[in-house]
Amino acid sequence: MTAVMTRADCVARDQRDPLRALRARFDLPDGIIYLDGNSLGARPRAALARAQEVVSREWGQDLIKSWNTAGWFDLPKRLGDRLAPLIGAKAGEVVVTDTTSLNLFKALAAALQLQAEGAGAARRTIVTERSNFPTDIYMAEGLTRWLDRGYRVRLVDSIEEIPAAVDDDCAVLMLTHVNYRTGYQHDMAALSRHAHAAGALAVWDLAHSAGAVPVDLHAAGADFAVGCTYKYLNGGPGAPAFIWVPQRHQAAFSHPLTGWWSHAQPFAMSHGFAAADGIGRALCGTQPVLSLALVECGLEVFEETTMAAIREKSLALTDLFIELVESTCRKHPLGLVTPRDHARRGSQASFTHPHGYAVMAALIRRGVIGDYREPEIMRFGFTPLYTSFADVWDAVAILKDILDREAYDTRAERSAVT
Amino acid sequence: MTAVMTRADCVARDQRDPLRALRARFDLPDGIIYLDGNSLGARPRAALARAQEVVSREWGQDLIKSWNTAGWFDLPKRLGDRLAPLIGAKAGEVVVTDTTSLNLFKALAAALQLQAEGAGAARRTIVTERSNFPTDIYMAEGLTRWLDRGYRVRLVDSIEEIPAAVDDDCAVLMLTHVNYRTGYQHDMAALSRHAHAAGALAVWDLAHSAGAVPVDLHAAGADFAVGCTYKYLNGGPGAPAFIWVPQRHQAAFSHPLTGWWSHAQPFAMSHGFAAADGIGRALCGTQPVLSLALVECGLEVFEETTMAAIREKSLALTDLFIELVESTCRKHPLGLVTPRDHARRGSQASFTHPHGYAVMAALIRRGVIGDYREPEIMRFGFTPLYTSFADVWDAVAILKDILDREAYDTRAERSAVT
Repeated sequence: MTAVMTRADCVARDQRDPLRALRARFDLPDGIIYLDGNSLGARPRAALARAQEVVSREWGQDLIKSWNTAGWFDLPKRLGDRLAPLIGAKAGEVVVTDTTSLNLFKALAAALQLQAEGAGAARRTIVTERSNFPTDIYMAEGLTRWLDRGYRVRLVDSIEEIPAAVDDDCAVLMLTHVNYRTGYQHDMAALSRHAHAAGALAVWDLAHSAGAVPVDLHAAGADFAVGCTYKYLNGGPGAPAFIWVPQRHQAAFSHPLTGWWSHAQPFAMSHGFAAADGIGRALCGTQPVLSLALVECGLEVFEETTMAAIREKSLALTDLFIELVESTCRKHPLGLVTPRDHARRGSQASFTHPHGYAVMAALIRRGVIGDYREPEIMRFGFTPLYTSFADVWDAVAILKDILDREAYDTRAERSAVT
Repeated sequence: MTAVMTRADCVARDQRDPLRALRARFDLPDGIIYLDGNSLGARPRAALARAQEVVSREWGQDLIKSWNTAGWFDLPKRLGDRLAPLIGAKAGEVVVTDTTSLNLFKALAAALQLQAEGAGAARRTIVTERSNFPTDIYMAEGLTRWLDRGYRVRLVDSIEEIPAAVDDDCAVLMLTHVNYRTGYQHDMAALSRHAHAAGALAVWDLAHSAGAVPVDLHAAGADFAVGCTYKYLNGGPGAPAFIWVPQRHQAAFSHPLTGWWSHAQPFAMSHGFAAADGIGRALCGTQPVLSLALVECGLEVFEETTMAAIREKSLALTDLFIELVESTCRKHPLGLVTPRDHARRGSQASFTHPHGYAVMAALIRRGVIGDYREPEIMRFGFTPLYTSFADVWDAVAILKDILDREAYDTRAERSAVT
């Protein structure tokens, strides 16, 4: 633990911060401390000019030609190649396309198919955590219910139960690498190894990992992965998601969402489906070009630094936040749910409070933007590209003030907080 | 046939055109005659300011709050309600979301499920045309192959064979209302009636119909429909597609792509899937907000007129184009593949030419933007909101000049023309 005692110490740390210059790459509103980049990343400055270029010139002036001349067709692959280094993937293994939910559906369908054609043909369960992000569970349930061949989703209630649940009925271990509520980070390599040893495949959701923590999918031995570009990657609201299919699984990668973009020759307009070679087979239909194009503005910023540098600052920020909250707010009923162990921590810090919803609403009114997740959890996301140590100090000071003065309204209606 | 003989006559018709003022609602490049709105609609002028607003204010300044304050969550339904009148749908029956391919997958899955639970349980075929847009066939094949319960796609080779193919094994008749190559428009009411009489359901793809021809899904008795917003609806490149589920089928509407946006309470983060009431259950994952938001700019323009007025001008434009091509280029080997019968014609006119690809490339070099589809078909789309009668005259004059002088390069490489 560092012994930061004053705001001046935080300002001094910001002055030494090697990532300091990157904050200027983002457009952040005045008077706001934005600790919700784990839900919607801030806007890269370059995104406005890029949006104007796509709308005015590429769409407005060049019209249909832009599918070729502006590289619209290649965007899913070009962005995938640019994203790949952040997650330990190789070129030609990632596409940015569709939604995380749909990409997970493709990955799970492909994983079950791989098992059905191999030694795992008798295996019937997809094992995951009950605490996984719900859409992952819903998609797995949708898939297994429709396959209707005895497949089912098995939910485990604690991390400790995972190893035993990966038994000889387990076809796929599907986990989200960093938990959306608690910020707990799984040991991807150990769990993937365990899955393989048990005859299962390992499918990872990197929604809260990509751009947040170092990920090395190849080193970890993962089988498939999906993730989100609108959180830590700052791709824009609802920007298309990504899917990773390692080269070794590409020839056998098969899923039911076989739209024309996954065809070997989409413009041959042939009547029989023939899957594209390589990662192209993870595509489906025509992509939303404008939303897709802005993903590049987020990825560009990562090329100015390294995930190691981002991780170092991320841990320093979350350490500082935890330390300051626990020292200055110790008389309040706050409970840390994020691991203290660096190896198990994502890039967020979550605290429970009996009036978590009301306290978060008060924080937001005071310009500290975090979010709330049932039950009782206040989430604070730390994004080293644009969050400063002084931001952490100021956020905790405001939290302390709200709690000390009980300046929150427990009668507040609960509404959608994303 | 009208006997337009001079360009001045065309200019006079433009001066009388009640839709004339709407051309100013679009940003069209100078020196271009754009006859490819059936592939990518032109840019509504309002789209640039709207994109700037979404990027700068909604994303950049209001950040995560915009999911509620800017109505991002409601966009799929709000846009669906706004699109509904163009296709004879009611409020609460349409969402703009995902891609046409994915929405077709949902509709087909739901249709097969409806049949499986009812009198059609033994039915195993999805009947469609071999000339349907390939992605529709690929998605149907992906679904049936994966369900693996004896379902299969049956392709018919001519329109005349459709009625007989809808036999007691047919679960779903899946057709694209207006053919993408020929512009042939099916009789939706008669074919839906025929499907129902035979015990099948009727699923329609409106990719080349929505905003192009009057559609009345309820009057036609259709069961489900999907379509595209980036063609005649001018929603922007790859903008999200739509799906229509009539109220009478909503309670039973079930598909495997059950992401969190289709959940009754997405933010309850509950572990069991419970489908939303109503059209919300056709959603899946988080949507690309920026691309989605611009769809509204396209729909707004339609509220300045009626589909009847659009249709009247569309037929006048295609009549004029056909008449001029056939009269002025009669010594060249052009073959009309679009129906002369108004009732069977969409909003395009397609001609074959032995060197169709090269001729189209020459037209594009001269600023007449149509497109090419295998085999030998030159497509010309007519979009009454921004295409003038003088445009038609000028386009045909340029076509005639190219053909008369053989000013096209038959050695041109074939590349992707969308």
